[in-house]
Amino acid sequence: MLNFNDDIIAAAATPQGTGALSIIRISGENCFAIVDKIFKGKNNLYSAKTHTIHYGKIYSKDDQLIDDVLVSVFRNPNSFTGEDSVEISTHGSQLINQKILETLVGLDVRLAEPGEFTKRAFLNGKMDLAQAEAVVDVINSRTEASLKGARNQLDGLLSKKVDFLREQLVNTSSLVELELDFAEEDVEFIRLDAVKEKIKNIIDEIEELLKTYSFGRVIRDGVNVAIVGKPNVGKSSLLNYFLKESRAIVSEIPGTTRDIIREELSIDGILFRLFDTAGIRLTEDVIEKEGVLRSRRAVSDADLVIFMNDFESGFADEIYSELKSLSAEERIITIFNKVDLQKDRIQKSDANISALTGEGIDSLLKLLKKKAVGTETYSEKTAIISNIRHFNALEKANSNLLNAIESIDNIMSGEFIAVDLRNAEQALGEIIGKVTTDDILNNIFEKFCIGK
Amino acid sequence: MLNFNDDIIAAAATPQGTGALSIIRISGENCFAIVDKIFKGKNNLYSAKTHTIHYGKIYSKDDQLIDDVLVSVFRNPNSFTGEDSVEISTHGSQLINQKILETLVGLDVRLAEPGEFTKRAFLNGKMDLAQAEAVVDVINSRTEASLKGARNQLDGLLSKKVDFLREQLVNTSSLVELELDFAEEDVEFIRLDAVKEKIKNIIDEIEELLKTYSFGRVIRDGVNVAIVGKPNVGKSSLLNYFLKESRAIVSEIPGTTRDIIREELSIDGILFRLFDTAGIRLTEDVIEKEGVLRSRRAVSDADLVIFMNDFESGFADEIYSELKSLSAEERIITIFNKVDLQKDRIQKSDANISALTGEGIDSLLKLLKKKAVGTETYSEKTAIISNIRHFNALEKANSNLLNAIESIDNIMSGEFIAVDLRNAEQALGEIIGKVTTDDILNNIFEKFCIGK
Repeated sequence: MLNFNDDIIAAAATPQGTGALSIIRISGENCFAIVDKIFKGKNNLYSAKTHTIHYGKIYSKDDQLIDDVLVSVFRNPNSFTGEDSVEISTHGSQLINQKILETLVGLDVRLAEPGEFTKRAFLNGKMDLAQAEAVVDVINSRTEASLKGARNQLDGLLSKKVDFLREQLVNTSSLVELELDFAEEDVEFIRLDAVKEKIKNIIDEIEELLKTYSFGRVIRDGVNVAIVGKPNVGKSSLLNYFLKESRAIVSEIPGTTRDIIREELSIDGILFRLFDTAGIRLTEDVIEKEGVLRSRRAVSDADLVIFMNDFESGFADEIYSELKSLSAEERIITIFNKVDLQKDRIQKSDANISALTGEGIDSLLKLLKKKAVGTETYSEKTAIISNIRHFNALEKANSNLLNAIESIDNIMSGEFIAVDLRNAEQALGEIIGKVTTDDILNNIFEKFCIGK
Repeated sequence: MLNFNDDIIAAAATPQGTGALSIIRISGENCFAIVDKIFKGKNNLYSAKTHTIHYGKIYSKDDQLIDDVLVSVFRNPNSFTGEDSVEISTHGSQLINQKILETLVGLDVRLAEPGEFTKRAFLNGKMDLAQAEAVVDVINSRTEASLKGARNQLDGLLSKKVDFLREQLVNTSSLVELELDFAEEDVEFIRLDAVKEKIKNIIDEIEELLKTYSFGRVIRDGVNVAIVGKPNVGKSSLLNYFLKESRAIVSEIPGTTRDIIREELSIDGILFRLFDTAGIRLTEDVIEKEGVLRSRRAVSDADLVIFMNDFESGFADEIYSELKSLSAEERIITIFNKVDLQKDRIQKSDANISALTGEGIDSLLKLLKKKAVGTETYSEKTAIISNIRHFNALEKANSNLLNAIESIDNIMSGEFIAVDLRNAEQALGEIIGKVTTDDILNNIFEKFCIGK
């Protein structure tokens, strides 16, 4: 396997913090010889078979014992990166990690940049670019649905689809090239009709893919929901109800900035982040001002707004008109709370609930899900896009293909059509990394954590 | 190898949080067959060799793909626990961890209790109890010196020493038993002198060990230093000076409660935690009260107090007398700041410094170290105790041996001497776990993290 990088990189691969084990990952052509310099075990790693584990001790440059460890050996090309690789499993300690990394750096090993292991896996042909991007999505997945979506992309569902479309484009292009060769021979109209038909099919398929984005994005990133309403309409009760019912569903990630997040819940595996807002109203109070600004920002940034009223105080017109200035109307879900107290008065609302008894909350959850992901359902075998980069590339491909059709309709020269098709092909190629630039790669991998 | 537990345990072995990899650890007689039920790879684990790594996919009970993983196989007795063990390396995600653990629990695997892997290692004879305790010390080590101390204990330095003393005791005991057998034959006085000599030697060695505790404890746990002084004497400047010079030396552990800790620094590998105090003074102010209480607590809990004055405002008598009511006088280090401004006025103090220029700070650091660990130095081959349990057991052994000597001096019956020696032997045995109870084990292992 061809190595694009000939230096050896190393990084901690496990999170910081206290745990039983820490792993350091090292990759690069014959990193075994380097690690052998600090490792003393029964066997040396240089001659070890791939996929074997070796007990031994790691020493610092001045021959101080750092830790006893297990070293795993992976030989080119049978490793994550496709290169010779080593994983050192130590006692779970950052200090030990640090000392081993320091020692390695003293031996011509370089600290890895974020995502550099996955970047090498891509450059060495172990995965395509859409799969590489899915690696970080898998790691960041918080709910079943997001994990499944990321796994499907990592397993190549999207890549296969894009590759298939790209191949069809290549075939169509060759028809056009053929056309150009025979340009004088008057066969063009029949052939161009066939070309047009093929392009239209590809456009249809791309549009199907583009349509999955709103679903895929929500699956991947979750949905931000601002809860707004007058004091005492029951915002806290609603949050507490969610807390009681669903806290366990969503896994915790320590260190998440929770700021004004009050609750997270998973509806059919989709992550909803509920933001409590202090209340939306104009104020001159200096102390209040910052809080109000933050609430307004929470509303305008939110994917959905739950506008909460109660049957006692009625519909809060003044808040509603403020909300409409901050958010699109279809994003606002108006609900009435305390239905348990006032069964006979029915108000115009999207859902009537009781945060006390839980009445109506099921329909509120269904409504939230419907507003977030629509009613479209996708089978597990459907390729779904969830990444804005893929969305943009598909749109670019699509607009090039529409140009091509326009050129055909306007009986333009075949060269124009060929250029459009080539651009569309290139846009598709960007998704899976057949066509790429340093900028694209840097943008993608700088979002990774170090050690991946 | 004998397995004391016949159930299979599992736990996440890497810290929570975002990272490249997560590890799940599984241990118990033939856990391979269980993991094979959810793992699909080229080979099954049941027939895999020890210390080999296998790529494959893990599925949930309802056959949903959870993740693609690397599984490491360790066969009894060549594993950390001494039992059949498996480590599953997944993408770094708590959700994936959680799903795999859930799936395992559905297959008669039990979630491990804190420290249960190490407990099994101890019960299966892979390490003695003092070594097992060192495992958690290694993990918690924050500085070079603490790591080295914990490593020495893990490598068995203390265990060998204690075992050696225990053997000498056993030999001495047999002399006494012999004595009892021949009690009528008038040889006792000569023999008892020899016994007394041997016991005295053991006492000397135990006392040498006991003396290392103040050093060992400081090495292991670090030193808490409260900084006290009037406002504006330069407490913050001193902290900032330390910050600038030494922050990088101490590795960060996320999630540490920092509360009123302002700085940590490492002097020759020993961890000093500096607590800033709001100021020590009596107050009736309700808001201030809580802060003052906390400051007083910080001072009385501190191992050392830096009492900071400056050359401008002079010696703060009223604070000093308060300090003496909260802390032993030899723990208080009186310093004068702003020596750069007032070179000619020399005050009685332990150190004259300038937090601005750094003048005198080296001698302050030396003084801190000397006060913390004394002037005694130990070679790397010296057994050092750092654990209060070991200290107590050694004291118990010692007092039993002193009793034995008293019995000899008082020409008591040999049975009394024998009992004392047996009790001393038992106390030493507790350190390395030759003698143990469920209570001792629970106390030790409940301090471990889960997965270790």
